[in-house]
This record gives sequence, C-alpha cells and structure tokens, in this order.
Amino acid sequence: MSTKSTPVKRRPGGRSARVQDAVYSAVGELMATKRPDQITVPMVAELAGVNPTSVYRRWGDVDALLEEVAVAVFTREDEKLPDTGSLSGDLGAWAGSIAEDIVRPHRTRYLRAMVNARDGVLASGCPCWNARREQLAEMISRARTRGEEAPSVEQVLDHVIAPLYHHVVFAMPIDRTYAERLVADVLSMRQRERV
Amino acid sequence: MSTKSTPVKRRPGGRSARVQDAVYSAVGELMATKRPDQITVPMVAELAGVNPTSVYRRWGDVDALLEEVAVAVFTREDEKLPDTGSLSGDLGAWAGSIAEDIVRPHRTRYLRAMVNARDGVLASGCPCWNARREQLAEMISRARTRGEEAPSVEQVLDHVIAPLYHHVVFAMPIDRTYAERLVADVLSMRQRERV
Repeated sequence: MSTKSTPVKRRPGGRSARVQDAVYSAVGELMATKRPDQITVPMVAELAGVNPTSVYRRWGDVDALLEEVAVAVFTREDEKLPDTGSLSGDLGAWAGSIAEDIVRPHRTRYLRAMVNARDGVLASGCPCWNARREQLAEMISRARTRGEEAPSVEQVLDHVIAPLYHHVVFAMPIDRTYAERLVADVLSMRQRERV
Repeated sequence: MSTKSTPVKRRPGGRSARVQDAVYSAVGELMATKRPDQITVPMVAELAGVNPTSVYRRWGDVDALLEEVAVAVFTREDEKLPDTGSLSGDLGAWAGSIAEDIVRPHRTRYLRAMVNARDGVLASGCPCWNARREQLAEMISRARTRGEEAPSVEQVLDHVIAPLYHHVVFAMPIDRTYAERLVADVLSMRQRERV
C-alpha cells in the first residue's frame, strides 16, 4: 500500500483508510498508462478490489476522484523548500524542481485530469495553487527579513507557476533553464502596488 | 453553413468543403453543451449528416478533429489589432479582449479540448500560439519604430498569454483588469538579453 499520496482531507481511519489507499493506488496505476477521460469508476474499483458503489458513494464521480488524487499528489508534505540565502537562488531552485517534476508523464496526466475536472466548475480556483502559495509566502518573507526587494506572492504565481503549468498542459517544452528565465523576469519586475 | 471558422489548412473545394463546413458546425454545436471527452465521431457525423467513415478517413480520430476546429476558432482572420499609439495601450486592449473572449463557455471548452488533444503529444507546441506570436510581433515592432522600449514577443507570451490561458483552463477567474495587470507587469520587466 502506498503512503506517498498524503490525502488532503483528514485521513480517515480503519477500513475507510484502507479503501482510500487502495483507490488512490489504483488511480495512480491507471494514470501511468491512460488518459484521464479513459478512466472509469468500475475500472478503478476493480483494480482497487472494492465495490464500485463504495467509490460512487464516497467520491461521487470519477472526475471528483481524479481531482482529489491529483491535489494529494501536488500537495505532498515531503517537499523541502530551498534555503540558499537569496530569493533569486531560492526561487530558481524551487521553480526548477517544479519544472522537472511536472514534465514527468504521470504528473502531466494529473495536471490534465485537473483541467478536465474543471469543466462545469465556475472560477473556483485550482486547489493545487494553495500549496504553492504557502511555499512562496515563506520564501518571500525570509527574503524581506534579509532586507531583499521581493515581488508579491501573486506575481510569482502569475509569472512563474502559471506559465510552467500552461506549457505542460498544452505540451510545450519546459526545463530548468526556462523556469530560471521566468524567475529572472519576475525578479526584474516592478512590484505591484498592493502586495 | 457557417463561415465563421476559417480552416487552417487550405480550404478544399466542392463536396469536400461542404463536408468540412458541416462537420465544423456540428463540432461547434456539440461544444456548446458538451465536454470534449463526451464528443464522439458518430455523434459529430450524425449531426453533420455525413458518414462516420468520412470523418475517420479525413480526421483520424475525434481528438484530431476537435483540435483542428479549436485552432480554426482561435486563429480567425477577422480580429483587428488595436493601434492606440502606445505599446501599453495596444497590449492592454489586446490582452483585455483575449481575456473576455476566452472566458466565454464554448471558448473555454475549446481550450480544454486542446489540452485533451495534447495527451501523448510530446512538446510539440500549441498551434494557437502562432497567431498570437504574429500579432505581438506587429505591435512590438510598431512600438520600437516609435522609439518605445519593448519586451520581447516571448516575454509577452510567457507572462500575459500563458497566465490567461492557464487561469481559464484551470477555472480561475480572469477579467480585463487582471489582463491589464499582467501587461503592466511585463512592461516593467527587464528585457531578456536575446530578443
């Protein structure tokens, strides 16, 4: 049983936890070879060895399930924030490792699954930004404590994270160098009035 | 028969053109109410009044068809570039109208269809960027002729178009004000060494 995907919701105990682990693992296995729109609840249930009804009851539909797993994958707690002594160093290392992470095929599939799940959802925001926002707030606050000029959290989200995610979901090439160029751009920007 | 979607490929004549028009219109109608992954070739063929075999023969599969229509929709020739006398005015008006355009539900669905169609496509780029690249090159070249400082085309694509598309496919809110803020950010950036 994999413990790599830390659930976003409070972890349920006992049988419920075992069902969740099995279902999350099944989704992970299916995502390794299939597109999100080819994955169905019966498929997940069979691979997880649970009753499809339990999956429907708990997650509603396959989109909600895929999104929950995607969010869990993108908000793991085991990421260590870089602390290089400069904001430029921190953001470069952070953005570079995000770029290398999201081009891995199953990560790209998770991002596309989130895009799919967004259909019919009106401007609710993307839950995977919350983790990024917290990480940025910490790096930027450290930089300001050191007396460095720093862009706002929203500027880095808009000008580093958004282009990286955009490129990956639309299959445009990205690498560490591209991520570092985005960081250099945002560090050369005028700060927005309200940060 | 709609002539709103100008095909990207050279327009075929006669029967072939009628099939294409009918199929494009059918896709447009279906996209108004359905998610891309709910649309099938037989569905399109029935609505277009053509044989599914003709659709498979010409487009291969439904993803290729949806993408071709999406590209056609996003590269219409009837967009007039703003010419306000300043790059800031031009980019603000241009980005603002793109923002207003892509939040319309069927446009958002086309963008998501392109994300879907990208699966299995390795870093091939997004065909809808080509039209944007040409529009930008023109506005930036006019600005430089006037003696204005200007960011590179790639900087505007990365820092204005990418965040707008990103927000729309992930269902995060955008409006004209957000687009203008992105433009102000990119205009305050240091130019990249190689433009």
